[in-house]
Amino acid sequence: MPNYTAPTKDVQFLLHDVLNVTASDVPGYDELEADFTSAILEEAGKIASGVLAPLNVVGDTEGCRLENGVVRTPSGFKAAFDQMKEGGWPGIDMPEQYGGQNMPAVIGTAVGEFFSGANQAFTMYQGLTHGAASAILAHGTEAQKDTYLPNMIACDWTGTMNLTEPHCGTDLGLMRTKAEPQADGSYKISGQKIFISAGEHDMSDNIIHLVLAKIEGAPEGIKGVSLFIVPKFMVNDDGSLGARNGAAVGNIEAKMGIHGNSTCVMNYDDATGFLLGEENKGMRAMFTMMNEARLGVGMQGLSQAEAAYQNAVAYAKDRLQGRDVTGTKNPEGPADPLIVHPDIRRSLMDQKSFAEGGRAFLLWGASLIDQAHRSKDADADGLVSLLTPVIKGFLTDQGYDMTVQAQQVYGGHGYIEESGMSQFTRDARIAMIYEGANGVQALDLVGRKLGADGGKHVMAFFELVKNFCKENAGVSETYAKDFIEPLKNASKDLQAAGMYFMQAGVKNPNHALAGSYDFMHLFGHVCIGLMWARMGKAAHAALDNGASDAAFYETKLTTGRYYMARRLPATTMHLARIQSGADTVMALDAESF
Amino acid sequence: MPNYTAPTKDVQFLLHDVLNVTASDVPGYDELEADFTSAILEEAGKIASGVLAPLNVVGDTEGCRLENGVVRTPSGFKAAFDQMKEGGWPGIDMPEQYGGQNMPAVIGTAVGEFFSGANQAFTMYQGLTHGAASAILAHGTEAQKDTYLPNMIACDWTGTMNLTEPHCGTDLGLMRTKAEPQADGSYKISGQKIFISAGEHDMSDNIIHLVLAKIEGAPEGIKGVSLFIVPKFMVNDDGSLGARNGAAVGNIEAKMGIHGNSTCVMNYDDATGFLLGEENKGMRAMFTMMNEARLGVGMQGLSQAEAAYQNAVAYAKDRLQGRDVTGTKNPEGPADPLIVHPDIRRSLMDQKSFAEGGRAFLLWGASLIDQAHRSKDADADGLVSLLTPVIKGFLTDQGYDMTVQAQQVYGGHGYIEESGMSQFTRDARIAMIYEGANGVQALDLVGRKLGADGGKHVMAFFELVKNFCKENAGVSETYAKDFIEPLKNASKDLQAAGMYFMQAGVKNPNHALAGSYDFMHLFGHVCIGLMWARMGKAAHAALDNGASDAAFYETKLTTGRYYMARRLPATTMHLARIQSGADTVMALDAESF
Repeated sequence: MPNYTAPTKDVQFLLHDVLNVTASDVPGYDELEADFTSAILEEAGKIASGVLAPLNVVGDTEGCRLENGVVRTPSGFKAAFDQMKEGGWPGIDMPEQYGGQNMPAVIGTAVGEFFSGANQAFTMYQGLTHGAASAILAHGTEAQKDTYLPNMIACDWTGTMNLTEPHCGTDLGLMRTKAEPQADGSYKISGQKIFISAGEHDMSDNIIHLVLAKIEGAPEGIKGVSLFIVPKFMVNDDGSLGARNGAAVGNIEAKMGIHGNSTCVMNYDDATGFLLGEENKGMRAMFTMMNEARLGVGMQGLSQAEAAYQNAVAYAKDRLQGRDVTGTKNPEGPADPLIVHPDIRRSLMDQKSFAEGGRAFLLWGASLIDQAHRSKDADADGLVSLLTPVIKGFLTDQGYDMTVQAQQVYGGHGYIEESGMSQFTRDARIAMIYEGANGVQALDLVGRKLGADGGKHVMAFFELVKNFCKENAGVSETYAKDFIEPLKNASKDLQAAGMYFMQAGVKNPNHALAGSYDFMHLFGHVCIGLMWARMGKAAHAALDNGASDAAFYETKLTTGRYYMARRLPATTMHLARIQSGADTVMALDAESF
Repeated sequence: MPNYTAPTKDVQFLLHDVLNVTASDVPGYDELEADFTSAILEEAGKIASGVLAPLNVVGDTEGCRLENGVVRTPSGFKAAFDQMKEGGWPGIDMPEQYGGQNMPAVIGTAVGEFFSGANQAFTMYQGLTHGAASAILAHGTEAQKDTYLPNMIACDWTGTMNLTEPHCGTDLGLMRTKAEPQADGSYKISGQKIFISAGEHDMSDNIIHLVLAKIEGAPEGIKGVSLFIVPKFMVNDDGSLGARNGAAVGNIEAKMGIHGNSTCVMNYDDATGFLLGEENKGMRAMFTMMNEARLGVGMQGLSQAEAAYQNAVAYAKDRLQGRDVTGTKNPEGPADPLIVHPDIRRSLMDQKSFAEGGRAFLLWGASLIDQAHRSKDADADGLVSLLTPVIKGFLTDQGYDMTVQAQQVYGGHGYIEESGMSQFTRDARIAMIYEGANGVQALDLVGRKLGADGGKHVMAFFELVKNFCKENAGVSETYAKDFIEPLKNASKDLQAAGMYFMQAGVKNPNHALAGSYDFMHLFGHVCIGLMWARMGKAAHAALDNGASDAAFYETKLTTGRYYMARRLPATTMHLARIQSGADTVMALDAESF
């Protein structure tokens, strides 16, 4: 069975050596002293490895079962959920007013990676609750907040998001679920929603469904969509639970992975719902928490890559097979461990340099969210809006590929479910799809975010890279050669791609859209290149300052050099694909496929 | 449920327009008139789509069950297997002397792709039998051939290959299974083998296991490995079946995919075995059929990509979601079909250009095998030996990626098992692992095949590309620009990589081995680029000759242009990775991972 160890030391490095959180003026960051964050991370790491990780295979094997309208979660899930609640983990970055601990997103995200890496399907129950609570926090009335948030932040009640219907996923304007206004100000909600994660289960007293629906007579398309709170059990005025509402699970889906999470068909049959936010502004209400939710999905992709990598390393050190061509390394044994072989190392270095670079990217993104929310920094908000589809799309695509590489290290044993390596790929696969399939992320990036506010945010990003390169070229000669030069080249590729979109896209938007997916990956590589350059600089500084753990920082430099030399050259390929334009992409009639 | 249609027209194009089989002097090719091959392909296609494809999901859902030592295959498998036997399909490319139809490998491979695309797990039963029969054909005594081949070629008896043991996969020198010589010339075989596909099942009267084992006192390592025939039921002198042998299934594995094939732990307990070939020459006996077997696995990767692609296209045409940004295409409907969106097309074109290019590569490889075997052409033999790890490694890696892309077209529905799209990825995943994991293919390519016969075969390949470019630059101006130029550039990248290996690898073999995986992919892209250049030329010729189906040939040209413009630029990235050498790959101590 696979093991999981939370990468606490790596997060400490990122928080304190790279992001330098205590020096930041973001409200709340001054409390994030190294001892304090270390204590939180260690505690979260213990739960991740000790409580959640052992249930990961259990969740996959048992799955969820629907019995007479009740969904049974896998053995041990309820007890672990109670333990998470007791530790206050679900509310770590939620307001104190409603029972949370008011930590910044950067801490919530760091801890979230541990939980998700240990058990993605399990962690989704609280992740969705977090998302639903955020929506109520942003758009609810005071009464709604008081009624729902304390229970949701404690995870006594969990939450769901209901968007998809059988005939509409990305295109929510086609939605058919109806909301009929009632005399008392509530609505009767009727319709069917599918792919509802954690839609029904046995771990909480109540489930608060957030449901998109159309009020009768509303405008066509997405401009007529409203958001409703639809509790499983009605809530009485005194806060106690009342009658069962007309919201019921119709079926649970058999899926490729995340078997431990119940993915439900939800049937709403004259269910009582309460408007959240304004009429016909449902999409806007959903979108205000989209950055957070998409960052969370990017985190899942990364988390599975990290978990799979850890097990691939353990196997590569343990499994004896073949001999090092440059000389036997394990003369007493019948063969050398797999890790001596260059191609195994190539695979492990791909994984390691992605996991560490991706984690830096993710926590940088979370710190921008903190700047945007806590410091009301509009530039940070614009930048993180730009980066969000990259974090979601790139980290989940690459995260998935890395789980496949990790599985490959196991050879035939990786294909057998007993090893647990297949589960990492099957679970990671969903992150490329939900919260907006990655093609939709690419469209959002190129079609909306690039040009937002007159292109101001992408220009700011280029400026940021340029300034970083200028300011740090003098760190050392090797640093300039190994880090700054490749970052400059990759950034030039990204700028050239942006320029191509501006020039060719004006003539025909398809020239931009046909290159959107490659642009998302190109952008992702530049971001991780920037992260490695920042980490390389921090490692240099630590070594110069005589850091006690020199091996840790030396390893950082080596891993960074690997990424710059072996991963960043992908930008050239993406640029070439982009610059080939839409002609060959769009040339065929639909019938010719 | 997914559908499957055999790409018969595409194979006809490859056989007659591109490979021009009837003009070849390979014995047997003169019979391959277009009408004749069309009849075979149509018949095979009917069975693939009508009989095998409907059982694909059944096999995945039901899987195989072990009950009291008997393995039950999924519902319908036995009847379908009987139908395949009655049609004579398993022996299509086997000698007439033993009941086969003596068709060339190029036909066996084309038909094999259809069967595998329709149902990979099912087709493996006859595929493994084919492999085992080939080994007996190449190394058996006349008596062994007479005893086993007619039954195996008819698939009344099926075959297996027993290599892997719990502690040894790639490194077969560590093998522990023992063979004890008996007075009558037979051996007693004892040991445990794992991952034995089709090791036990209920579809044939007997199972002929080919088992690698060490005779007592044999040399250490792989030089002491011998190959044995171990029948499930002993065969009496009159050909009837006798006593049950000491070969029994211990367990069947729960796997990520190919659930319809029974992957067995096989226990040999004083089982009677008969030496196949010479003592201690078991590896050589295995390797003589390795080209064929690895080509077969490459075919599987391609076949799943084709099957998944077909369903992605159908979904993209059917599913209405969003609007074409350049103007509504389906004004009467609530939305346009997915296929109008540039990124969906990008994905479908990736898939289409791979499937058609990969098929050309595969059938070219099969035609080289025919040249090698039927015309005793040593150059063809050397070339296909060089290309075999590329066919296996590249087609299975890329084939898998394409199934993932096809699944992505379905959005959330692709993650639900009901759509059948997950099965394509889960089934395709194994092809990257078995018959030598793809890292081992890369090692074989760079460590053995490149330098074989003084590098003669890779030089011949470069010569072949060079001559093709020179001879066909004049086909037309656009052809030269769209096909010849990109092929030249990609081929230069491949040569530069080979040059780097020669120069740097001499100093340190790790410089070559650390780039082996990228080299395999670089080589694969050049091969498919060459195939597209050949197909483009053939399409040009057909159009110039006033072919009646102009749309087919125009589509070929467009698809080829896509591959050259959008896929071939990957060679630059692979070259950059290769030329960065082993330093960053090998720098870390094992403890630093």
